[in-house]
Amino acid sequence: MTAHGYANHSPTDKLETFSFERRAPLAEDVVIDIQYCGICHSDIHSARNEWGGTIYPFVPGHEIVGRVTAVGNNVSKFKKGDLVGIGCLVDSCRHCEPCNHGLEQYCENGWTGTYNSEDKIGGTKHNVTYGGYSDTITVDQRFVLNIPENLDAAGSAPLLCAGITTYSPLRHWKVGPGQKVGVIGLGGLGHMGVKFAHAMGAHVVMITTSPEKGKDARKLGADEVLLSTDAEAMSAAAGTFDFLLNTIPVGHNTDPYMNLLKLDSTMVIVGAVEALTNVSGVPFIFKRRNMAGSLIGGLPETQEMLDFCGKHNITCDIELIDMKDVNTAYDRTVAGDVKYRFVIDMATL
Amino acid sequence: MTAHGYANHSPTDKLETFSFERRAPLAEDVVIDIQYCGICHSDIHSARNEWGGTIYPFVPGHEIVGRVTAVGNNVSKFKKGDLVGIGCLVDSCRHCEPCNHGLEQYCENGWTGTYNSEDKIGGTKHNVTYGGYSDTITVDQRFVLNIPENLDAAGSAPLLCAGITTYSPLRHWKVGPGQKVGVIGLGGLGHMGVKFAHAMGAHVVMITTSPEKGKDARKLGADEVLLSTDAEAMSAAAGTFDFLLNTIPVGHNTDPYMNLLKLDSTMVIVGAVEALTNVSGVPFIFKRRNMAGSLIGGLPETQEMLDFCGKHNITCDIELIDMKDVNTAYDRTVAGDVKYRFVIDMATL
Repeated sequence: MTAHGYANHSPTDKLETFSFERRAPLAEDVVIDIQYCGICHSDIHSARNEWGGTIYPFVPGHEIVGRVTAVGNNVSKFKKGDLVGIGCLVDSCRHCEPCNHGLEQYCENGWTGTYNSEDKIGGTKHNVTYGGYSDTITVDQRFVLNIPENLDAAGSAPLLCAGITTYSPLRHWKVGPGQKVGVIGLGGLGHMGVKFAHAMGAHVVMITTSPEKGKDARKLGADEVLLSTDAEAMSAAAGTFDFLLNTIPVGHNTDPYMNLLKLDSTMVIVGAVEALTNVSGVPFIFKRRNMAGSLIGGLPETQEMLDFCGKHNITCDIELIDMKDVNTAYDRTVAGDVKYRFVIDMATL
Repeated sequence: MTAHGYANHSPTDKLETFSFERRAPLAEDVVIDIQYCGICHSDIHSARNEWGGTIYPFVPGHEIVGRVTAVGNNVSKFKKGDLVGIGCLVDSCRHCEPCNHGLEQYCENGWTGTYNSEDKIGGTKHNVTYGGYSDTITVDQRFVLNIPENLDAAGSAPLLCAGITTYSPLRHWKVGPGQKVGVIGLGGLGHMGVKFAHAMGAHVVMITTSPEKGKDARKLGADEVLLSTDAEAMSAAAGTFDFLLNTIPVGHNTDPYMNLLKLDSTMVIVGAVEALTNVSGVPFIFKRRNMAGSLIGGLPETQEMLDFCGKHNITCDIELIDMKDVNTAYDRTVAGDVKYRFVIDMATL
């Protein structure tokens, strides 16, 4: 099966049209006609080889929504015409303890990313996975998700990465009514964190350096805004938060945020994959505070998140673009000039 | 009541004999004839004003063991002749949520340290608490602990700080049989961590830079030694630990240790009050790992720890010194030249 998409061929290349092979559906496979694909900052880091290890040609995209066009013989969960999604994972070992608990994102034998991973299922000449900046994709049913039909399909695409990345820690650390929850940073992740924490019934505080972003956060569901540049306000808020979702995408000094937590409470890092610039033991020790990380989500929890979105009518705020404008969108994403996620309309491919 | 002890009068002064006043016992008070007092590194930091805020004259000491010589009218828990201990706290607000839960060390209104704190109970001309490098002390019964009579009194003194500091996180994070627990660093704290984790039934791994300390740790109850300088061994041990107790007393790179943890596991910092030199988000995110801190323990848990020590016959390994040798002991403590805690024999005062 020939697929058409966009790829780049070196770290400095622009993305351009590229044709490649998708495997013919196996018994467990679902073939999807891709309608929309979100642009995640990880796509850009990988395309530009900023994390190393990028294999070229490189086809990005792991926030995929489309319609099923064919299913394998053993597929009962999906049928032709279903609205479905694919996130960051298309395979895992399926037999380690995390996999057995539906935590495929923590697979001990290494999960297969939707792009730039060794394709262990095979069936094509190339040995690497190609992502969702393309017209079709073939994925094992375990890694395919149902998208509620009441949701806007384009706005649902980033739920598959930005959505689950923020939903999973809020659920794991049991965020709910009666709690004061801070979301640090308002970008693709942060804006979903605000929507989810609000829908879960928490009192949501947007923590940002920007009064402008504070205003935007209120429209998204934040009850309060705390400017991290306001030393007096930060001091007054010390020890008052039940949970913090930290979406800052770069290294930063975590001490001012840790000090906001109550006794025995947790701040979860979902954005910063670089070294934090300052972490003192003091805020940890003096209130037995925790700092943790969290990585996307497993398949069962991702489906739970999509069902939650269906029930609460939650999608991402997006800017829909044509495929040809992807390179400009990359530059704008790096500049932080998007509210809050670009989604490619695959009909324009 | 006149007390005799040792104090220093400026950051650069040596400790020398000093007489001062203790309050006459109030209804809730217990008067103690001090037999032994441990030397904690915090005593030295405070004596030398390395953390700021030291009020002179300064009488250190918060690892106190002695016999009750008198009790106030409302005291029923203790009687003359009882072997008792005083740790880091001699008072707290007693009405905030942490205090109500026996977590006085996290008192929201500020607990009173055994030394160098504002004395809110009063009853003396000086307005500050003086510690255990002295012949007597008067303490409210809530902050007095029973020392099991089967324990060596001198070796019990450091249980009041080094002991509870390591026992509390091991209990809070539910260390027990079937778990692989790492204790990082072998000093006053680390050697107690090894003893406790072993007594709790865990498989204990001493993590150290020093093969010599590794040998010592085995004698204390460690089942295994992992040299943190051995990159191959550290890599082989990645993702295998259920819990890490990090007793390193200075800033350090936590990444190599965090990588040792299993999914959803925790490393607790009890020593480092300085900034950690390198903390990357990656080990947190990729296995949902946690880093936390922990501060000594509340009074109920400190009593639980002492009872546990009585049952398992656990005390600290100490070097008993005369009061006059305290200044030399300070220098040796700073140089790491003690196995594993100096204790002052107050009969030599």
